[in-house]
Amino acid sequence: MNIRFYNARILKTNDDHSFDIVEGELWVKGNEIVYIGDGSDAGNVVKGSDVIVWDKTVDAKRNLLLPGFKNAHTHTAMTFLRSFADDTTLQNWLFNQVFPREGQLTEDDVYWLNILGIMEYLTSGITSNFDMYFFPPKDAKASVDCGFRTVLTSGLNNFGGTVEAVEENYHIVNEMSDLTSFIIGFHAEYTTSKELMEGIADLAEKVKSPVWMHNAETELEVKECFDRWGMSPTQITDSLGMYKYGGGGYHCVWMDDRDFEIFKEKKLTAVTNPCSNLKLASGIAPITRYLKEGIPVAIGTDGPASNNALDFFREMYLMTALAKVREMDPEAVAADEVLYSATAVGAQCMGLNDCDRLEVGKKADIIMIDMDCPNMQPENNIVKNVVYSGSKQNVIMTMVNGKILYENGEFDIGFDKKEIYAKANAIIGRMK
Amino acid sequence: MNIRFYNARILKTNDDHSFDIVEGELWVKGNEIVYIGDGSDAGNVVKGSDVIVWDKTVDAKRNLLLPGFKNAHTHTAMTFLRSFADDTTLQNWLFNQVFPREGQLTEDDVYWLNILGIMEYLTSGITSNFDMYFFPPKDAKASVDCGFRTVLTSGLNNFGGTVEAVEENYHIVNEMSDLTSFIIGFHAEYTTSKELMEGIADLAEKVKSPVWMHNAETELEVKECFDRWGMSPTQITDSLGMYKYGGGGYHCVWMDDRDFEIFKEKKLTAVTNPCSNLKLASGIAPITRYLKEGIPVAIGTDGPASNNALDFFREMYLMTALAKVREMDPEAVAADEVLYSATAVGAQCMGLNDCDRLEVGKKADIIMIDMDCPNMQPENNIVKNVVYSGSKQNVIMTMVNGKILYENGEFDIGFDKKEIYAKANAIIGRMK
Repeated sequence: MNIRFYNARILKTNDDHSFDIVEGELWVKGNEIVYIGDGSDAGNVVKGSDVIVWDKTVDAKRNLLLPGFKNAHTHTAMTFLRSFADDTTLQNWLFNQVFPREGQLTEDDVYWLNILGIMEYLTSGITSNFDMYFFPPKDAKASVDCGFRTVLTSGLNNFGGTVEAVEENYHIVNEMSDLTSFIIGFHAEYTTSKELMEGIADLAEKVKSPVWMHNAETELEVKECFDRWGMSPTQITDSLGMYKYGGGGYHCVWMDDRDFEIFKEKKLTAVTNPCSNLKLASGIAPITRYLKEGIPVAIGTDGPASNNALDFFREMYLMTALAKVREMDPEAVAADEVLYSATAVGAQCMGLNDCDRLEVGKKADIIMIDMDCPNMQPENNIVKNVVYSGSKQNVIMTMVNGKILYENGEFDIGFDKKEIYAKANAIIGRMK
Repeated sequence: MNIRFYNARILKTNDDHSFDIVEGELWVKGNEIVYIGDGSDAGNVVKGSDVIVWDKTVDAKRNLLLPGFKNAHTHTAMTFLRSFADDTTLQNWLFNQVFPREGQLTEDDVYWLNILGIMEYLTSGITSNFDMYFFPPKDAKASVDCGFRTVLTSGLNNFGGTVEAVEENYHIVNEMSDLTSFIIGFHAEYTTSKELMEGIADLAEKVKSPVWMHNAETELEVKECFDRWGMSPTQITDSLGMYKYGGGGYHCVWMDDRDFEIFKEKKLTAVTNPCSNLKLASGIAPITRYLKEGIPVAIGTDGPASNNALDFFREMYLMTALAKVREMDPEAVAADEVLYSATAVGAQCMGLNDCDRLEVGKKADIIMIDMDCPNMQPENNIVKNVVYSGSKQNVIMTMVNGKILYENGEFDIGFDKKEIYAKANAIIGRMK
């Protein structure tokens, strides 16, 4: 599709983590941004290109075009467990509620549950996810069938999977589609034997992949890791040679000085999951320190069983609001930094360097924010309006890879939403 | 207007803070709920009533009718300062940014800025607010003109106002309209002389009103209060005989054992403002303890300069999520308790006992939640879906006093939204 947006406000990302907003046009040809400007210099001819025939011309009505949000840690298919077992201890939640039901999931279940999650992402302006769940090729297939962009990693642990299967999935998913890719990972130190972790380190070196895991989500996890190895999760995995090609950790709440050093040395990214960390009473991540040390921070929703929504506005708000209360410092973590994390850092850590910002030559993963809403007024500072006051209500378009998948509350993903809801209800209904 | 909703799911509130959901019809006659049931027994005749002629019949499509949310603490007209001066210290924010600009506000400004805030409330399912700001009669007038319900209190302090003016406003606002009422209050102990507080206590006794103030919002405020009086804000105000007719405090973050006792003895309500307390780095309120002690907790957004959104879903989520992380206990504060606070407790503490729940004879302050959205699926637990996953996106109707003021993204408040946005931008533009 070739789509021309005119009368738009367009967010331009600067390398210093600040933003500018320019007024004018943004053109999409196929899956790529081919022009940003006032339109006067270009007609509908882009340099080095034929005349573009527009499939669609959109009056943006001075609404705001943003790069889509990158959900840098999630378990999408856990939609079936939303509101199923909240307000309970982590132990009871995991061992009595979650694990026994996850054990009953079929590949087909995971396919449909992923689609429900993708729909929710689209309503929140999320254009790609970094997912860890069972049956990665099936997860990837759900994304491809919807036109959504997904980076998968393996949740390998002692209870299931092999390093060989991770390698197989690595190739299947990386070769499946332009919309899908795979980065090496495993569940977490506390669920994975040293032998498996060594296998992962070898595989990562072989295929030249970064490595990801759940890292320092709870205080207990870190304590027990020290009891086992005399080292933190970051330190033991680093000692196994895990990060030759970088990578990072999900959650990263309970870090010590040496952990910060390793993150800096190995250029690792910390993905923060503020809502999940509150709801499961894990703690509040030291965002201020990451940023001070120059460690990139991306943002994730975590899975819908632990959060429970896949709402990036809530996560963005809490990345800064929780940092402020953690440090008792209202100056902590400015709004620009949050939006940079939500877009550019997320893309970078997911290997989506061509989806990180709105710029000619980048992939067209774009959302439109309705400025014609009371929470976006007055316009004292538009980035702050988005980060501090924005809500899913403001998302009036979500485009992935040049295709509009969600617009004005309607989905265009090739599935009937009622059918997807019925599937999800039937899957959990079977397990009650 | 007489409005019949059919094919609805209707939330019924129980006195033990739990909820039931019934399927059927809800009828509104004038400004009152006159029937809830399956419709079969009633035709369109309600016992003791004439045949009702419907002005509007609504197929609710199995969407959820809830009592509207009660925003139990806010400064609505501060919309002009949204995103104006964030990420800065409280001192700088108040003394260099907020106060000098508030000093320039005219009564007319406050009228228009209130309307912008009311619009935002409607998008969030808020049907009434408990407001403290300059020019209470003008604030009230804005609500009446929109058809919105407002309870006002005075922000009396050493920098402006008199007890006599509070008394005058008490009568003006209470007599203005069925939609408006006034409860005695003052700004806070740290801004108000003992003489003024004594005057407020006398006035409250004279008119038999509860008394409200900002209470224990910051640690410093409490420390300085002890330095001045050897007592906390709760203790000094109680010692002045402030709470003969009850009342309560806004924020209530830094409380000691004696404060809890006084709240119990005097049947005071604590209004929590979770987003504001994070963003201004004030702290996290002890919600678990309030509930354990049987002290009612209501929820407020605080003003849009300190939050910055007027988004009740964000506040509801954080009432429980912050309690969980504060106590490091994922079992803290169940979803039902949050929804009860957001509706019934809010109404009770605002003196809106006829707006607290959906029941025959109650005022028709009703919202409709779109269940046909991915974040509301599957339907494992609908109350949890609302509290943990809900967003403003799910609010498809907000009715106040029997009139639909907001439906499917459109306002019916007698004002053009573009005009209101232009007014707000012009007001802050004048002060830059």
